[in-house]
Amino acid sequence: MENPGKIAAATAALSYIEDNTVVGLGSGSTAKIFIEKLAERVAAENMTLTCVATSHFSEDLGLKLGLNVVPLDEVTSVDVTVDGADEVDPQLNGIKGGGAALFFEKIVAKASKQNIWVVDPSKESPRLGSFKLPIEVLPFGSGHVFNYLADMDLDPTFRMLDEQTRLTTDSANYIIDVDVSKVDDLHALGDELIRHTGIVEHGLFLDICDTLIVGEEPARVINRH
Amino acid sequence: MENPGKIAAATAALSYIEDNTVVGLGSGSTAKIFIEKLAERVAAENMTLTCVATSHFSEDLGLKLGLNVVPLDEVTSVDVTVDGADEVDPQLNGIKGGGAALFFEKIVAKASKQNIWVVDPSKESPRLGSFKLPIEVLPFGSGHVFNYLADMDLDPTFRMLDEQTRLTTDSANYIIDVDVSKVDDLHALGDELIRHTGIVEHGLFLDICDTLIVGEEPARVINRH
Repeated sequence: MENPGKIAAATAALSYIEDNTVVGLGSGSTAKIFIEKLAERVAAENMTLTCVATSHFSEDLGLKLGLNVVPLDEVTSVDVTVDGADEVDPQLNGIKGGGAALFFEKIVAKASKQNIWVVDPSKESPRLGSFKLPIEVLPFGSGHVFNYLADMDLDPTFRMLDEQTRLTTDSANYIIDVDVSKVDDLHALGDELIRHTGIVEHGLFLDICDTLIVGEEPARVINRH
Repeated sequence: MENPGKIAAATAALSYIEDNTVVGLGSGSTAKIFIEKLAERVAAENMTLTCVATSHFSEDLGLKLGLNVVPLDEVTSVDVTVDGADEVDPQLNGIKGGGAALFFEKIVAKASKQNIWVVDPSKESPRLGSFKLPIEVLPFGSGHVFNYLADMDLDPTFRMLDEQTRLTTDSANYIIDVDVSKVDDLHALGDELIRHTGIVEHGLFLDICDTLIVGEEPARVINRH
């Protein structure tokens, strides 16, 4: 049975969606409920929505439920994206990428006028770093990127499918998870990481979330200051 | 018949290679001659070199000529890399990526203690920008990256294999070529590009080349100040 708090958060997110707009469909358990409720509402109210997805999972789910899901490149911009987060702090900065879709999630978020995150209370944290930060790296030379991260004392580990096999993302890259719990300035870290040759993207989502909806009854809504 | 200037430059580059070191094998017509001359010298002097390559072409050529070419991740660092450039200015900053191998070239260059570029005189330019700057982008959402580059007045074009098919790199990404001839601060541009979600790497090689060898008779050697 679905968690009543998650249902409350998904329902609250639904109130941000207007007819004739472009909606980003995110990932995560609450975002999944949001997609289901969105599909119900679109059918009930005969809405005309265009949707883009941040993962193959969301895309497949949306299409299965009858939503009009198109590739990101077919829309100029996204009006509202409803996505999850793996960890979020009181300033609405977060870590994403637990599902290895961080690049898709970030490019959709950056293309979105409004970003709403729906999370359960366990994702809230006074300070980011309890969740490992995922970093997407190109396979060629990834050992050098790994050594660079180790030199920065970030305790890197390649994300594995099993003992022998590294996980590859939808873009055929690797994920290296690092520990940022001892890092004070995450904006500076993000800047440093993204400039490093071989790093495609990282899971720090800073200054992106506009509204956080926490899955409680009633749903708790926090807007960026 | 090979150009005497190119041979002079390749021969000059050879003098930087010491026994028992790790050598980066670059791309370009002069770098190709360098690889051939290196293989001859290794055989003649019975040298023990470990080589890494910046492209499949260089790797195949090196292996065919009997050089010990290993993956980049098997070495801790590279002592000297000899590579080409598509355009180079008097400060030894350059544009690379005409062969679409810019990411491999950059990660090898960054792993190298010394970078030597061998070019023919036609590649010298008082100001970078006569060669189009290649930018490697992830396919997903690449239309949005294209629009961002167009908004920056950089006149972007996807590099095509034919009228219908976009070229894909060895990392399965696209290349967008842009016009930077009107850009004054290329360091600032490089910084901005690398932070943009969806851009994997760009072909601006700034503050990387230590020694430029121009293919004339005799070879003209310019060291970074």
